[in-house]
Amino acid sequence: MIEDFQHVCITCRDIERSIEFYERLGLVVTDPILELDEAGIGRAFQLPQGHLRVVHLAPPEATGKMFIDLVQWVAPPSTGEPYAALDHIGINRLAFRVSNIDAMTVSLRERGITFLSEDAQLFGGIRTIVTTDPDGVFIQLLEWL
Amino acid sequence: MIEDFQHVCITCRDIERSIEFYERLGLVVTDPILELDEAGIGRAFQLPQGHLRVVHLAPPEATGKMFIDLVQWVAPPSTGEPYAALDHIGINRLAFRVSNIDAMTVSLRERGITFLSEDAQLFGGIRTIVTTDPDGVFIQLLEWL
Repeated sequence: MIEDFQHVCITCRDIERSIEFYERLGLVVTDPILELDEAGIGRAFQLPQGHLRVVHLAPPEATGKMFIDLVQWVAPPSTGEPYAALDHIGINRLAFRVSNIDAMTVSLRERGITFLSEDAQLFGGIRTIVTTDPDGVFIQLLEWL
Repeated sequence: MIEDFQHVCITCRDIERSIEFYERLGLVVTDPILELDEAGIGRAFQLPQGHLRVVHLAPPEATGKMFIDLVQWVAPPSTGEPYAALDHIGINRLAFRVSNIDAMTVSLRERGITFLSEDAQLFGGIRTIVTTDPDGVFIQLLEWL
């Protein structure tokens, strides 16, 4: 049976550049970068090889055991562009609960992070703003009202 | 600051069909289907409208507060095809920890679920097998060794 969420995989083009972004957002690396090159990865993922670099990140005070599995493929290499719009079918955004979204938006803008809207938007009992990681992956911040 | 993971959004073409799949996998609906049509959604997500149907799902005994935000867009409609390969840049798979992956694979196959590999594959201290949801989104099951 399913016991729990384990991780969500974000595939990136440059793992050091992506780590820097997610750390700037406030996540922490929980396991160091590991380089794996195993035939089982290729077989499980239906790819000709299974050579990748991977690192785990999570919010420092997360309530669960979930983490981001940030992967840069070496062979085959990471490829393509992420979904360009939020109505695209697939896993198209990852959302974090934040405290004081307005102060966080200001502080992240000072650190060079850009957002899809000028201010946090209100709907469905939350206020939310969306940014993109260095590859263009949608990352949502939200505050409960 | 970032407090926690909140949710991961999976955008689908047909929400009832996708709920049926995720329930078959062993997840439970934690909030009923909600239909939202709010200008704030369009502004936050940089879309011309914000009309969607959404439902939340999670493993019944999850340790954290994380959930799947399963979304079917009405206007604009859900669009496109999910990533076709697991080395594609973006959020390309969601992984669940399971107990007894071999028994689970057999039981899910009996319920019509197909997998990328014949058996669970071993690498990096886990055994894992990958399935796809009704739209083709990669869902990974894994068991710690």
